[in-house]
Amino acid sequence: MRKAPNRKAFIVPGFRFASIPAGIKKSGTDDLALIFSEAPAAAAGVFTTNKIKAAPVRLAIKRINSHRGQAIIINSGNANACTGKRGLKDAEETSEKTANELGISPELVYASSTGVIGRPLPLDKIKKALPELVGRLSPSSLQQVASAIMTTDTFAKISTRKLRIGKKTATITGIAKGAGMIRPNMATMLCFIFTDMSIKHQALDSALKDAVKNSFNKITVDNDMSTNDTVMIMANGALQNSPITRTSPFYGKFADALNDITHELSKMIVQDGEGATKLIEIIVKGARREADAEKAAKAVANSMLVKTAIYGRDPNWGRIMAAIGYSGVEVIESNIDIYINKTKLVGKGIGTDKEEIARNILLNRNPTITINLGAGTKSATVLTCDLTKKYIEINAHYTT
Amino acid sequence: MRKAPNRKAFIVPGFRFASIPAGIKKSGTDDLALIFSEAPAAAAGVFTTNKIKAAPVRLAIKRINSHRGQAIIINSGNANACTGKRGLKDAEETSEKTANELGISPELVYASSTGVIGRPLPLDKIKKALPELVGRLSPSSLQQVASAIMTTDTFAKISTRKLRIGKKTATITGIAKGAGMIRPNMATMLCFIFTDMSIKHQALDSALKDAVKNSFNKITVDNDMSTNDTVMIMANGALQNSPITRTSPFYGKFADALNDITHELSKMIVQDGEGATKLIEIIVKGARREADAEKAAKAVANSMLVKTAIYGRDPNWGRIMAAIGYSGVEVIESNIDIYINKTKLVGKGIGTDKEEIARNILLNRNPTITINLGAGTKSATVLTCDLTKKYIEINAHYTT
Repeated sequence: MRKAPNRKAFIVPGFRFASIPAGIKKSGTDDLALIFSEAPAAAAGVFTTNKIKAAPVRLAIKRINSHRGQAIIINSGNANACTGKRGLKDAEETSEKTANELGISPELVYASSTGVIGRPLPLDKIKKALPELVGRLSPSSLQQVASAIMTTDTFAKISTRKLRIGKKTATITGIAKGAGMIRPNMATMLCFIFTDMSIKHQALDSALKDAVKNSFNKITVDNDMSTNDTVMIMANGALQNSPITRTSPFYGKFADALNDITHELSKMIVQDGEGATKLIEIIVKGARREADAEKAAKAVANSMLVKTAIYGRDPNWGRIMAAIGYSGVEVIESNIDIYINKTKLVGKGIGTDKEEIARNILLNRNPTITINLGAGTKSATVLTCDLTKKYIEINAHYTT
Repeated sequence: MRKAPNRKAFIVPGFRFASIPAGIKKSGTDDLALIFSEAPAAAAGVFTTNKIKAAPVRLAIKRINSHRGQAIIINSGNANACTGKRGLKDAEETSEKTANELGISPELVYASSTGVIGRPLPLDKIKKALPELVGRLSPSSLQQVASAIMTTDTFAKISTRKLRIGKKTATITGIAKGAGMIRPNMATMLCFIFTDMSIKHQALDSALKDAVKNSFNKITVDNDMSTNDTVMIMANGALQNSPITRTSPFYGKFADALNDITHELSKMIVQDGEGATKLIEIIVKGARREADAEKAAKAVANSMLVKTAIYGRDPNWGRIMAAIGYSGVEVIESNIDIYINKTKLVGKGIGTDKEEIARNILLNRNPTITINLGAGTKSATVLTCDLTKKYIEINAHYTT
């Protein structure tokens, strides 16, 4: 599912970007990237809930307590995870050297890594590349950064919105990477969002948490959760608006734009799911509680049998019923309806003999499966992709 | 991973077996099978915990309350699941007609089905085949029954033990089917076990529950749980031993033999995992609680990334660490050791650079991954298989 990269320059006032090939990836492509805010920014972050956290994640969790940030140094090709004390020292040193080059405090620099787990970070290569990386900083290089942070991704993921804040026009832009090891409650997934708005850290924090809950935590590629997942936002106030708080009139507008961006980026991640040929929306309606709807939707979205059936254009709704049944949600079989797009495949728990129509719908790249549990009024939506031979190919020899 | 079927005749005194092609499967192979005890037997069963249960399972759950059984009529090619009231009526009618042909009470007849979900059971074909099926009953046809209940299985699964009960030699034999939709807490899995011992139903029940817990609930192929899972045991007392109770001296011996059989059958199921080329034993040691060990082992066993890596002979232990980390168990990264067979891949959370040795070990068809959490003394073992392109092939077009 390739998508031609968008060559438009993305400008966020007060931010500069750079990338460089530091020799971490064998491929020789850009693998070190820098995001820099000209002024210290309000910062918030959401990190993996995996008990085993990569070194840079542990460092970021500590630093985010200051609610401030000015730079993020990101490498691909090496996760700096399961690297012990040395890994933590390497992450610290990376952020320090970056801070020195930028002439700012190390406390304002976040490090972020993605790639193979368990190999020491090639710190010398990073140190060596840093001066030129800083020299390359430019307001118009966001696209290159979005590419440099990719691992198995096939396209760079950028989403941007403009919004009116009083008489001013604000910009909010995010980039993301992640194509495998994706599951609800984050993904092998990095996402960095920048805005020139001035936003108080409490407002930034709550808006980010909500946005992640509604986007990255509702996608699944393979139900594996990584050690490195990170979503960070920096708001540098270059717009010089009066700072947005949780009760200010523009909070809703900002939160909506942030939601749009995280939703769009999370959709791109599933679209780019390793080996995926289809992006599938699983909607569960008619649940007693939203948590039930989400649980059922995730069980269907994670079912290897459902995912392979959709790959094969096989409207095997029995597998959907089975997944609903083992989701842990109390359901009554004879209340369940299942639709594929608008075609009812199952009515009151019984097949409707619409397999042929369904098979044709599955030619579509973006089918929707709607499940009505017939038990209440709550609903949830989860995005997933199909499971293909290509996924196996990509993942059978990742480190070799 | 084919295995030549064993052509030895399996005799269990007092039991007779038969199979026939009833035309339920397109392939024209045997798809209707009958297990008959000459005398009413003590019976126990464990059934799927899926909230959506196939009609014959619902019927069996009701009938097993009598703790008695004399016959099991099993069809493959159709699961009779998600078939509503008609499905239940069909299961009842199947057992009634079988009872009539056998001249026994319908309450002693269990129906069991496996195959595609959501299609009405072809009752007419079953009824038509029943007289000849009953006519074929023979003490030496167990092998044929084990084949007739197969769906995507590539070999028939039989396990048998002889044991001394005082001066007599008892027989206990089980058959099973199941190759996909396998996950802890049962599988798309049918298993029927027969013994000529006389066993009180409480003893039969508790031994069966323990045996299932230690075998079928500790295997995983694809983390999907079916609507039809059934494990049943019948003890007909043809041996004329004094009935075994939970406190009798032979209970332990019987329970051990039953454990052996369910363990062997569950191992065969994983070995025959759809598309599998490797049977992998995941051992988690050093856990604070057994439940923790099991949780961590299951997370690793179900990780698509771990399973594809092993298929590709890629000793990507970072994926194992990540799975341990998201298993929900509290772990300390720097306490974790990981071995592949006897080679230490990870020591105290850090890689040992033994990837080349590990890659060679992965040429082996039955590798063992041992994880020491370094937190306590409890352990658990889970069996899984690798995830291959063949799995996708088998499951992409199952109903088509």
